[in-house]
Amino acid sequence: MERKVNLAQAFEGVREPWTPRVVAALNGQEVKVVRLRGAFCWHHHADADELFYVTKGALRLRLADGDVLLGPGDLFVVPRGVEHLPVAEPEAEVLLFEPAGTRNTGNVVSDLTRP
Amino acid sequence: MERKVNLAQAFEGVREPWTPRVVAALNGQEVKVVRLRGAFCWHHHADADELFYVTKGALRLRLADGDVLLGPGDLFVVPRGVEHLPVAEPEAEVLLFEPAGTRNTGNVVSDLTRP
Repeated sequence: MERKVNLAQAFEGVREPWTPRVVAALNGQEVKVVRLRGAFCWHHHADADELFYVTKGALRLRLADGDVLLGPGDLFVVPRGVEHLPVAEPEAEVLLFEPAGTRNTGNVVSDLTRP
Repeated sequence: MERKVNLAQAFEGVREPWTPRVVAALNGQEVKVVRLRGAFCWHHHADADELFYVTKGALRLRLADGDVLLGPGDLFVVPRGVEHLPVAEPEAEVLLFEPAGTRNTGNVVSDLTRP
């Protein structure tokens, strides 16, 4: 029985930046892998806390009250309603944990929005 | 602002095996770090899917229909109601993701149960 997910292999499958892929689902939540490159856009999620876990690279989370710098092995939760701007410097591999159906751009709809 | 969690540092803080520590909470779920050593006990969680993510070592999840072997970077979801026996060979550092308040021994109460 092989339903396990290897994160390194999962990241091999996501070459396009800012395009999350669901790799596991549980308790109404989803685990996604996403490749980040450069700056995203300011946004928030009204009803979803969002966990960022960096497996490779460096991620700066810009928030109204300061920046959070995350490297490999660091995780951080952006609470619901909190505006944030993810900036990968220059690239990062990130695991997201958030409610199923959470839109990547939150309250914003733009060219960066993914289905 | 430093609310981030570094997993390596978090694991330094849990020397006792089979004693999960909550390091983050979001959307009614909790992220826990736990050090596993040897065999646990057979159990299930009636109302909780449980994610195991191995950061160090090797973990064998024994299930009724076979074993799943997990190494660093592997994750696996044990669905609710599914009996499982975690066996670390010989030790593993594991991140758990599950609903807040999930009991480590599930339907079993024993010397291994932690508050």
